[in-house]
Amino acid sequence: MPAYSIGVDLGGTNLRAAVVSSAGEVLAKVAGRTQLSEGRDAVIADIVRAIEAIAVEHPGEELAGVGIGIPGFIEIERGYVAGSSNLPFFDNFPVRDAIEQRLGTRVILENDANAAALGEHWMGAGRGEKNLILLTLGTGIGGGIIADGRVLHGQVGMAGEFGHMTVYPNGNPCGCGNYGCLERHASASFISGMARTMNIGENLTAEQVFRKAEAGDERARMIFVSMGRALGIALGNLINAFNYPLYLLSGGPLPAWELFAPSMMAEIERRSFAYRNVKTRIEKAILGNEAGLFGAAYLPLQLRT
Amino acid sequence: MPAYSIGVDLGGTNLRAAVVSSAGEVLAKVAGRTQLSEGRDAVIADIVRAIEAIAVEHPGEELAGVGIGIPGFIEIERGYVAGSSNLPFFDNFPVRDAIEQRLGTRVILENDANAAALGEHWMGAGRGEKNLILLTLGTGIGGGIIADGRVLHGQVGMAGEFGHMTVYPNGNPCGCGNYGCLERHASASFISGMARTMNIGENLTAEQVFRKAEAGDERARMIFVSMGRALGIALGNLINAFNYPLYLLSGGPLPAWELFAPSMMAEIERRSFAYRNVKTRIEKAILGNEAGLFGAAYLPLQLRT
Repeated sequence: MPAYSIGVDLGGTNLRAAVVSSAGEVLAKVAGRTQLSEGRDAVIADIVRAIEAIAVEHPGEELAGVGIGIPGFIEIERGYVAGSSNLPFFDNFPVRDAIEQRLGTRVILENDANAAALGEHWMGAGRGEKNLILLTLGTGIGGGIIADGRVLHGQVGMAGEFGHMTVYPNGNPCGCGNYGCLERHASASFISGMARTMNIGENLTAEQVFRKAEAGDERARMIFVSMGRALGIALGNLINAFNYPLYLLSGGPLPAWELFAPSMMAEIERRSFAYRNVKTRIEKAILGNEAGLFGAAYLPLQLRT
Repeated sequence: MPAYSIGVDLGGTNLRAAVVSSAGEVLAKVAGRTQLSEGRDAVIADIVRAIEAIAVEHPGEELAGVGIGIPGFIEIERGYVAGSSNLPFFDNFPVRDAIEQRLGTRVILENDANAAALGEHWMGAGRGEKNLILLTLGTGIGGGIIADGRVLHGQVGMAGEFGHMTVYPNGNPCGCGNYGCLERHASASFISGMARTMNIGENLTAEQVFRKAEAGDERARMIFVSMGRALGIALGNLINAFNYPLYLLSGGPLPAWELFAPSMMAEIERRSFAYRNVKTRIEKAILGNEAGLFGAAYLPLQLRT
């Protein structure tokens, strides 16, 4: 029987859900706020309500299940969420089972960046590639690894935490306790922090810094060159380690691609023997915020294949 | 029917082969020289001869096939060997099929470091772990990734080329074209090169430098501290990317573990959030030179599971 599924993307401020066919068509969609401050039961009730709002029957088609992308580390087998700074009340609580009981259908949890990588693999810039890596550039930097068509999890779904790879051993200090983490040299918060340090502006967003760079501000441009170098060092290392055909970037700073890509590609070219010898693509992700929703929806569908 | 297989390890100077039962017992073994200078046909004839020398029948048991570990990049599906500096004459030649035809049994080629990682997974320090990474420390640094019990290949078996990960963006120049590659800061050749630079001795092997350090030579000790730091930066990055439970080191410098491990572990502790939060082991591999032989033998056995 043909199948469809429901994908949920639980963000820090938004909760979105979509009904997606096994062919990747979005059949229904809902978006709302997440009321994280109201605690565990309220968040779970919000998730269940969003799903029920769009879960109308599709005659002749079977609901494969529900996939939920969550900003935290997921203990896949137990269905727990660990160490999420946004969702501390999920610690030591059977999140998956609680939602499964309320819905009466299979539920799969996944880290949100992993879900985004899976979404790009299924319906985005990674269609047709069974092996790819996604880097998500935001306030921090996250990512996901798709190995042979499936999310590579590591022990607790922490695989793909590229933001804390060391690119400069004596670089900028990071809240994680390290110096020189990628996300301290290439994230949106790096861009606005540098703009402040360089006296370009006190409280500029990364996008405002980008507009200044586009308009010809040489100091603002330097920030993106620097960001590209850090990304290139990290990507060169990933290419050497994985030898995958495709590496995707997504997130807010993506419009600045023309500003950071040249230095990024120069570093990759210099630092990766594998890149120089094997056809390897470094490209923009194309699904934007929808990637996580598609990936979450794909999780239960993938179990059927 | 119970099965056995034959593993071959084709090195730069040695050619070894072993008959191994599906339980991992070595039933027979042969070792000889590799005559790489005599070209392709001679090397293939040597391989075939070594296998035939030990391939007696084992009544009631089925030969699952032959696995061969080769120092080069392997195009697994085509059975080609690409870009091997030791075996340039294998370029654009159907190595696997040629050997298969001569033997009349299934042959699987694998990169030698990947085979070593698989061997440690099957019968070495990684028994019971389905996900692990091996770093091989030698003149250069190589490695292998075992994901869900199988070798992670990337596009042309180049995955696991950890020696060319950048640990110091402005570090020592490397023949690969990069600066600051791990193997320019942590290999056996780094150790002897540094001993020369620091006027400890002109032509000391890594082992001789180790003896001096053990005997209390403070400058020699510094080399191992430095090596440990570079390894720690690389391992911290790998732990952040993979979140695997086990990372193994093998190779000539392993006896110097007590000298380089403290600085290595300090860097990992500082640089990997995942390490600090999830039980992760960094250990010595235990099979030594046998790892590749076991891993090669396991390749055809693994296909049956």
